[in-house]
Amino acid sequence: MPGTSTTPSALPESPSDIPPLGYALAQLKGIYILAENAHGLVLVDMHAAHERIMYERLKIAMANEGLSGQPLLVPESIAVSQREADCAEEHITTFQRLGFELQRLGPETLAIRQIPALLKQAEANRLVSDVLADLMEYGTSDRVQAHMNELLGTMACHGAIRANRRLAIPEMNGLLRDMENTERSGQCNHGRPTWTQMGLSDLDKLFLRGQ
Amino acid sequence: MPGTSTTPSALPESPSDIPPLGYALAQLKGIYILAENAHGLVLVDMHAAHERIMYERLKIAMANEGLSGQPLLVPESIAVSQREADCAEEHITTFQRLGFELQRLGPETLAIRQIPALLKQAEANRLVSDVLADLMEYGTSDRVQAHMNELLGTMACHGAIRANRRLAIPEMNGLLRDMENTERSGQCNHGRPTWTQMGLSDLDKLFLRGQ
Repeated sequence: MPGTSTTPSALPESPSDIPPLGYALAQLKGIYILAENAHGLVLVDMHAAHERIMYERLKIAMANEGLSGQPLLVPESIAVSQREADCAEEHITTFQRLGFELQRLGPETLAIRQIPALLKQAEANRLVSDVLADLMEYGTSDRVQAHMNELLGTMACHGAIRANRRLAIPEMNGLLRDMENTERSGQCNHGRPTWTQMGLSDLDKLFLRGQ
Repeated sequence: MPGTSTTPSALPESPSDIPPLGYALAQLKGIYILAENAHGLVLVDMHAAHERIMYERLKIAMANEGLSGQPLLVPESIAVSQREADCAEEHITTFQRLGFELQRLGPETLAIRQIPALLKQAEANRLVSDVLADLMEYGTSDRVQAHMNELLGTMACHGAIRANRRLAIPEMNGLLRDMENTERSGQCNHGRPTWTQMGLSDLDKLFLRGQ
């Protein structure tokens, strides 16, 4: 099913007091949010949209004073390779700026004491191990700096809601409102659309109405 | 937005115990029912679908022993032209077979005492006046007989739920189940699709997933 009438990067104009992305109706297949706006049906890829919102939030926080951390109630230990443990030590200040507090417990063991507050719902273990993988790839601190946005993207992915998480209508509406207030929320971090509009005229065409 | 993956006249196969047209999620714009089935999103044009169901029911009833009537609690009088009143008198037996009981009250007035039981929710006045218009067009009883299905189509349209009638989820599910049990329910009486499937792969394409 090819193109839709509006490009999803531009929010539709709302003739009334209905918000641009409308109000949530339901969740579909644990992946999409269905909403009704002034123009018709809105389909939102909930993970992609939330990932984008998280990413912009992380970027803004980073640009201000770095990410604030949220201590874990119980520190988590994570098994890594020796090279990864070395990398964690080498980039300890980068981790700090990102809101992490890590400690090397042994040749191949790290303790996670704190993760970024914005990602407090993420799985700490996998989050740290993916950030470590990025850091291993970027190498020196200079290159890490140049790839800071990719790092934040990796982290945003961990913070975003996963497929098959059941959302209540108010949570869905919250996400729609966040999208409206987030720059470039029409595209996910990988450039894919986060939502799409099926206007009444698109729907009418599907049903050969008015022909 | 052109073609979809499944032709809407063939019900999709359900791998599980989810019914072919799935379960209703919500109503959109007072026109469409959104449902989730095994394959993804189902969009139903609720008026067209219900019209088709009514039409098939009327045809079956007609083929058996004519339509049974439902007396109105309070007879309605209807102002018509003299030609229409003459037509009503001329086709009194046709009206009876269709489940109506009419009486001429004056040169330009009819009383409606009974309407078809299957259409008891229709607006009696407009129903009778549209059936009369058809009869005027078909003329003789022979031609009326030949156009019986068109007549039933006109009546089905009156019996079908209108746009902007708010349906509860169980009503929507009832309609979906009726569609599954109605022959040729994939097309409305005018040959337009009554529902369309947007499979997960269609949705993925909209979101450029898996590319």
